[in-house]
Amino acid sequence: MCGIVGIVGTTNVNQSLYDALTVLQHRGQDAAGIVTFENERFFLRKDNGLVQDVFRSRHMRRLVGNVGIGHVRYPTAGSSSSAEAQPFYVNSPYGITLAHNGNLTNAEDLASDVFRSDLRHINTNSDSEVLLNVFAHELQKMGKLNPTKDEIFAAVRTVHRRARGAYAAIAMITGYGIVGFRDPNGIRPACFGVRETENGKEYMIASESVALASQGFELIRDIDPGEAVYIETDGSLYTEQCAENPTLHPCIFEHVYFARPDSIIDNISVYKSRLRMGEALAHKILREMPDHDIDVVIPIPDTSRTSALPLAFELGVKFREGLIKNRYIGRTFIMPGQTMRKRSVRQKLNPIELEFRGKNVLLVDDSIVRGTTCQEIVQMVRDAGARKVYFASAAPPVRYPNVYGIDMPAANELIAHGRTEQEVQAIIGADWLIYQELDDLIECAREGNDRVESFDCSVFNGQYPTGDVTAEYLEKLERERSDARKSQRNKELTADSDVIDMHNDE
Amino acid sequence: MCGIVGIVGTTNVNQSLYDALTVLQHRGQDAAGIVTFENERFFLRKDNGLVQDVFRSRHMRRLVGNVGIGHVRYPTAGSSSSAEAQPFYVNSPYGITLAHNGNLTNAEDLASDVFRSDLRHINTNSDSEVLLNVFAHELQKMGKLNPTKDEIFAAVRTVHRRARGAYAAIAMITGYGIVGFRDPNGIRPACFGVRETENGKEYMIASESVALASQGFELIRDIDPGEAVYIETDGSLYTEQCAENPTLHPCIFEHVYFARPDSIIDNISVYKSRLRMGEALAHKILREMPDHDIDVVIPIPDTSRTSALPLAFELGVKFREGLIKNRYIGRTFIMPGQTMRKRSVRQKLNPIELEFRGKNVLLVDDSIVRGTTCQEIVQMVRDAGARKVYFASAAPPVRYPNVYGIDMPAANELIAHGRTEQEVQAIIGADWLIYQELDDLIECAREGNDRVESFDCSVFNGQYPTGDVTAEYLEKLERERSDARKSQRNKELTADSDVIDMHNDE
Amino acid sequence: MCGIVGIVGTTNVNQSLYDALTVLQHRGQDAAGIVTFENERFFLRKDNGLVQDVFRSRHMRRLVGNVGIGHVRYPTAGSSSSAEAQPFYVNSPYGITLAHNGNLTNAEDLASDVFRSDLRHINTNSDSEVLLNVFAHELQKMGKLNPTKDEIFAAVRTVHRRARGAYAAIAMITGYGIVGFRDPNGIRPACFGVRETENGKEYMIASESVALASQGFELIRDIDPGEAVYIETDGSLYTEQCAENPTLHPCIFEHVYFARPDSIIDNISVYKSRLRMGEALAHKILREMPDHDIDVVIPIPDTSRTSALPLAFELGVKFREGLIKNRYIGRTFIMPGQTMRKRSVRQKLNPIELEFRGKNVLLVDDSIVRGTTCQEIVQMVRDAGARKVYFASAAPPVRYPNVYGIDMPAANELIAHGRTEQEVQAIIGADWLIYQELDDLIECAREGNDRVESFDCSVFNGQYPTGDVTAEYLEKLERERSDARKSQRNKELTADSDVIDMHNDE
Amino acid sequence: MCGIVGIVGTTNVNQSLYDALTVLQHRGQDAAGIVTFENERFFLRKDNGLVQDVFRSRHMRRLVGNVGIGHVRYPTAGSSSSAEAQPFYVNSPYGITLAHNGNLTNAEDLASDVFRSDLRHINTNSDSEVLLNVFAHELQKMGKLNPTKDEIFAAVRTVHRRARGAYAAIAMITGYGIVGFRDPNGIRPACFGVRETENGKEYMIASESVALASQGFELIRDIDPGEAVYIETDGSLYTEQCAENPTLHPCIFEHVYFARPDSIIDNISVYKSRLRMGEALAHKILREMPDHDIDVVIPIPDTSRTSALPLAFELGVKFREGLIKNRYIGRTFIMPGQTMRKRSVRQKLNPIELEFRGKNVLLVDDSIVRGTTCQEIVQMVRDAGARKVYFASAAPPVRYPNVYGIDMPAANELIAHGRTEQEVQAIIGADWLIYQELDDLIECAREGNDRVESFDCSVFNGQYPTGDVTAEYLEKLERERSDARKSQRNKELTADSDVIDMHNDE
Repeated sequence: MCGIVGIVGTTNVNQSLYDALTVLQHRGQDAAGIVTFENERFFLRKDNGLVQDVFRSRHMRRLVGNVGIGHVRYPTAGSSSSAEAQPFYVNSPYGITLAHNGNLTNAEDLASDVFRSDLRHINTNSDSEVLLNVFAHELQKMGKLNPTKDEIFAAVRTVHRRARGAYAAIAMITGYGIVGFRDPNGIRPACFGVRETENGKEYMIASESVALASQGFELIRDIDPGEAVYIETDGSLYTEQCAENPTLHPCIFEHVYFARPDSIIDNISVYKSRLRMGEALAHKILREMPDHDIDVVIPIPDTSRTSALPLAFELGVKFREGLIKNRYIGRTFIMPGQTMRKRSVRQKLNPIELEFRGKNVLLVDDSIVRGTTCQEIVQMVRDAGARKVYFASAAPPVRYPNVYGIDMPAANELIAHGRTEQEVQAIIGADWLIYQELDDLIECAREGNDRVESFDCSVFNGQYPTGDVTAEYLEKLERERSDARKSQRNKELTADSDVIDMHNDE
Repeated sequence: MCGIVGIVGTTNVNQSLYDALTVLQHRGQDAAGIVTFENERFFLRKDNGLVQDVFRSRHMRRLVGNVGIGHVRYPTAGSSSSAEAQPFYVNSPYGITLAHNGNLTNAEDLASDVFRSDLRHINTNSDSEVLLNVFAHELQKMGKLNPTKDEIFAAVRTVHRRARGAYAAIAMITGYGIVGFRDPNGIRPACFGVRETENGKEYMIASESVALASQGFELIRDIDPGEAVYIETDGSLYTEQCAENPTLHPCIFEHVYFARPDSIIDNISVYKSRLRMGEALAHKILREMPDHDIDVVIPIPDTSRTSALPLAFELGVKFREGLIKNRYIGRTFIMPGQTMRKRSVRQKLNPIELEFRGKNVLLVDDSIVRGTTCQEIVQMVRDAGARKVYFASAAPPVRYPNVYGIDMPAANELIAHGRTEQEVQAIIGADWLIYQELDDLIECAREGNDRVESFDCSVFNGQYPTGDVTAEYLEKLERERSDARKSQRNKELTADSDVIDMHNDE
Repeated sequence: MCGIVGIVGTTNVNQSLYDALTVLQHRGQDAAGIVTFENERFFLRKDNGLVQDVFRSRHMRRLVGNVGIGHVRYPTAGSSSSAEAQPFYVNSPYGITLAHNGNLTNAEDLASDVFRSDLRHINTNSDSEVLLNVFAHELQKMGKLNPTKDEIFAAVRTVHRRARGAYAAIAMITGYGIVGFRDPNGIRPACFGVRETENGKEYMIASESVALASQGFELIRDIDPGEAVYIETDGSLYTEQCAENPTLHPCIFEHVYFARPDSIIDNISVYKSRLRMGEALAHKILREMPDHDIDVVIPIPDTSRTSALPLAFELGVKFREGLIKNRYIGRTFIMPGQTMRKRSVRQKLNPIELEFRGKNVLLVDDSIVRGTTCQEIVQMVRDAGARKVYFASAAPPVRYPNVYGIDMPAANELIAHGRTEQEVQAIIGADWLIYQELDDLIECAREGNDRVESFDCSVFNGQYPTGDVTAEYLEKLERERSDARKSQRNKELTADSDVIDMHNDE
Repeated sequence: MCGIVGIVGTTNVNQSLYDALTVLQHRGQDAAGIVTFENERFFLRKDNGLVQDVFRSRHMRRLVGNVGIGHVRYPTAGSSSSAEAQPFYVNSPYGITLAHNGNLTNAEDLASDVFRSDLRHINTNSDSEVLLNVFAHELQKMGKLNPTKDEIFAAVRTVHRRARGAYAAIAMITGYGIVGFRDPNGIRPACFGVRETENGKEYMIASESVALASQGFELIRDIDPGEAVYIETDGSLYTEQCAENPTLHPCIFEHVYFARPDSIIDNISVYKSRLRMGEALAHKILREMPDHDIDVVIPIPDTSRTSALPLAFELGVKFREGLIKNRYIGRTFIMPGQTMRKRSVRQKLNPIELEFRGKNVLLVDDSIVRGTTCQEIVQMVRDAGARKVYFASAAPPVRYPNVYGIDMPAANELIAHGRTEQEVQAIIGADWLIYQELDDLIECAREGNDRVESFDCSVFNGQYPTGDVTAEYLEKLERERSDARKSQRNKELTADSDVIDMHNDE
């Protein structure tokens, strides 16, 4: 997953971009980048690391200009473990930089298309570089010295015709402005807002509304599926629907786990949808186990706290933060002659024993993906003296891979893939396991905005709204993700090593 | 505040020290250090920064040895803003390194004493360097080639006679072992535990029991006030009471704010004492405002969540996490020609408006120190649409400076210093402000361990258990803290600049 | 000035490129870069600094591939003080990277041309980025999926038609090969050679023959003016004359100062031409001062040693290395509240007093540019006790700016600009000053290769062989160089600050 | 070998120390350090690397004070490959820091003595840390609150009684001043000088007179063997002979190779002694081969140029710089799956073929140590077309290890160890090999100062002037040096890895 932001301001935008990226940091902690422009020159800084580590004073001093875009990255399937920070850029036409959240499912075909039609070289495995080149190619073909909003929108229109998959993107056309657009299914989120200043209006486009709120921008609205928002250097803002049959299928996993609770996506409060998930799950529990003997509800921090609280309330059971998360994460080092020590879950979570000893505990998590941590937690909680350990997942079983930009493991690593709930329960070692119903989950999210016709629920039901995800594609993905994992492991082993791929990313 | 840890193990202890320090990181994020020994050579790495940044593979590879100590630092009054990472060391006698949590109130006198009696040079403003030299001086005087536990305990005994203030410390005597000790009032916490391995027993001494738990050590007990625990290289453990009239006065602020909730200090569960604080505060609210119109209780994250939950429960009011904390903190940069932008509280906290709009809200914080953030939050919450904003502090008014190692501001910067609760309420702009009663607070903490005769509550009541804190001392402290603040400000302005003071700390 | 190198090998070329760049380091110490390709992906590392500092193990591990190019940079007029390391790259067509030595005199016009005709954005002040885009534009126009040597040569042909000035360049076309070319006047040097390995032939193109010799390549020959050398991935080598009326006007300053003595440029041994300069100058001295009273000839290290030795021999006078150069250069730091200390020539040179005391000394330098150091040396030598101080320059007076890629100061900073030799002598404070005759200098260089019809001697005689250097151009240059100097000075003052311009150069 | 410097000034001395260290950089390129004091606090910065890399602005800003010392290090036998930068320090008494050049032959005994008598812990293998502790111990014993010159000199006196070997050292007593002293045989050099400023006199002590000259200090004289020079903070300078039977045995290898030619050591101009070495060697050649057929004399840069010039002159043969040294040194990287490539001598030296082709060449080097490079050069020169290759060494055969601080290999790695000159000639592959006579060498050096009774010529004749070098000691040394070499090799293999030993040296 990634986070994107773009601002057209009236003074230097670097600090606001930086602050917005820290607010979006939960969407990606692997790499960060900002590009701005002034006087037809752009200035780019990107590197692996957290926002706070990537940008030092010396970089910020050079990131001048009233227009810019930024990106935080979480490695997705396409880019595997290799390290390409964004924004990417091409020098023709105009010098275009682009920040992207999502995943193109036809990236390989597009890459060879742009090479064949325009000799454009793609130097990474990143579909974001492909997306940029498709967009750039379309603009180039029009050949205008001064591109107007009509050319920009026409280019986005062709991108929609050619690209498949999920994408929310912000491109900066050096010297002209920024354009944000969202795929015709609206799978990944994007919204925009305005801030009044003494020098006039300033606009921001961002992945989540919290980025706007934190910087004092007022949310105008989400970008519609297929729509583009173009903001010129002088602050003129234009929007246009650029897709033929746009339909809204936002990713429901943003509500389950990914987005910040204080964001509002497609008019739905993430926070409220999570509260509802807790309530719905409580009702199911009461239906399935009316005489439950649960003594205490304990969330597995942090995401599930929001749904666990009303869940406990509906059950009429105590809610307690019995698992304390360690906020500071260290590394495991390999000493000469030693083998890699398995990292215990105790490094991340610590149980407060008195909340467990002798009690029937209901642990609540937002979802269960690989299940390995669940298993360890269940054991740890038993060791802490719990009598019975029940486990509730605020989301249904995750059974299918994500192809729309969320870095989830390959299908065969999903604990619920090809397994019944009973089997999963047995593996994680819980005395009882209960999952949210998919219909309930959809209802919890939809309640916030009836206009959302449908969600992308593919990780739960295997139905991919873009309609082009074939078995072959999924198999290929499977292989790549296995490879990616291996090289990721290698990376950890050779630790402390920087990476160069293309743009001198150090 | 600082965190300390020491281990005598049966294999390399560097990873366990590292992991323990990350678990203690909440006690100090300014600097970190580890020293180990093997074959009569010690190996030291320390620097400013978080544990995860200070130690890289290349350092860990060199930190060999089965014995070692570690430290995380938060700058305290004595060391002001200048940057001395710990452990400190002296080469005579034996090569002793020391990690210290606390503050000596007679550090200046001691510094000139050790110079006069032993020509020992103190190169920093840190009272920890003084403490080390006092301890070293006593051992040196005995002049034993092979110090036994008796010499070690004798040295601690003299330290207790000479040093004033609060201190929990762990010293490593190169080639021999580690000794942990706690001041005769037991103001700062320290405990020890044991881990069984296939090679035999391993011991850890640490500031908080979570450090033990996270590394699989079983808590044996707290170090008594005035007691010393000496563990030799071979794993022999000895304890001895080294003070004449030890009495336990643990710092109550550990329970209010500082310690991790999952720690047990002096047999008191921090978590439970916080739950009780919430209940006690609820009872006071019900007494003072029996017909309260509170719609929702909202904690100011993170610490106060623990007490706010039972508080809401006792009031019979909804508990909601309506303020979302940004986990990633950025910096404010100064662009050429611009002045420092005030950092808004919005960078740290974001309100979920629907929890505030039209409601009477009770905000709960663990305590109120400067009050400036409170003020901003109250305003932010009003802007989010709250009808009435009530404010509850789980601790009594903070009115006096801390002289025992907590980095609190000077008295005149404490919002409650010399002010009534009414006046504070007016300044922070709340519709109603309610503080915990000190007696209640003490009761909440003591309920966990009746053997605790008294607490250090000096920041609330101005009574300093060491009995030696004069008005002159406090005035001097006031001046230093003002200076410290200024130089801290300078440091921020010249950002990105490293610091050398003594030991080549880069 | 800059150094360039390219290799098509049979195994990884990164180490050979690295080693070749260290051998060419005298041509530029400001920045270094290497790009390689493998499997249609290129890998780039570049940064400010010496070769030894820019490339660490972690970078080298990623610079895989049997084909690559490298660059060391000295800031030239065009790029002023701003920090753009090379190679530059464009992604269309094919992904082309380019390393350039020289200076385009019509870079501004070309930049706006490539924008107008191809919408290519130039993001720096570097004429090298312009050159790359002109070349890329021509290749793009042909639109071949697989460019053959004919397309490559055709592109070079158009570059020659459009570009003005001096340039030796090596471009890498990702996936295909490398092409080296030299401007139609052959002002900047470039040569190529071959190395036999067990896997077949390997080719190198480089600025100077020493780069070949040091890596075991045998010099084949210089690239002819206007010629291009194209080496495909499989080792096929093609050459073609791509200019219409090529004539050889190599820069004579390479022989005076710039090139390494052990290089052979256009069939002329730099070393031998310098020996001849010494002899010719001796003859002039003997003509002008037949009864000279010179006691000792002392070179100003390092370049002039080569010519000073035969000069002394011809004069029949002792040669002594009486000035010792400090090989290690430090910086001057500004302490708070202090002003910048003038850096004495004594930091760089130290006189051995006994070689000066009471003697008539002839100091020999390769040339006199600004004259400020000369002045200081003359004074230092007098302070060391010299009776008379004579000064000989192995080159004629430098009176005009260089527009072909040598970083020389603006005309008004040249000590001989608008001044007679007498006036220069008075300023530097020598008892006698003697310059080489330009005709003699040309003869010294030409003696090595009669086929060299003419040299670029523009810094001495103001005649620019490209025929397009107008008074306006020179005036503009003057202004830019003054500005560049100023910002350079700023850079020194704000020291320790990194620079980002375009490609994330940190 | 190492370089040391100390200054008592009237303003901040950091820049002068820094500049002096760059001038002494030839004495050690491995590590550098500076310590200063102000207001009874000292400030230390040291790290591995060149002076220019170790000290950045942020360090210099903190190195305040009018008194300070500095060090550049070349790893010597004692410290092996492990990385201890100097100055070292102890905190008692007074806070003493020390910079040392030389080697103690009884370091191990002394280390255990200071532990036994004073419980002083030595944490490194460095004899310099031992020397510091011996000195500190003596001062401590006197126990004066304010040490006067008499105590300082008394401490040096005892150091002379206890320490064996060679040492020139400068110690800084925080708050009081600096003291420089030289061992009773005066093996390692040290001198002192004065600079007049508007604020009064400033004094510098340094390894070589060039450090003084470059900073505008006037050489007063060398420190006598056994003498100490004490300069107090206020600029008072005292000297005293502290040894019982001092005799001057300066290391002759300083003249052969180590010292800068522009230095004057023990009243002998290094430069002149080298000129005389060339002349003496010429005379021997003429004696041994009166009808020599040498066409040209070519020095192996850089040191031998000074002696090769008069050698050529005396022979009446041309002198030519036919071997060009590459000033920039790179590294050899290991690519995954490759083995370490042997580094060719061509990376360091390049022959100008026309000076060799068809000629009888006399190569001149200052000395021959391992002989491996000689061998490669002889071969390279043959490859360049030389008809006959003669080789002359300006020093006699090096047959014995150095125990006085020069980092020379173990005896069995010295090519002349246990071999005749004929055998060496055969191994290096020269047509004729000629060595300087030891008597001639001594005469060349002594001619500058008749008061030098004797030299340390131990590497040539195996006579160690300190009289305590036993066969056992040499054997132990041999073993350590082999080990040191191995770990050095390891270090190269694990490149890019920093080192911590004791003082947090990063």
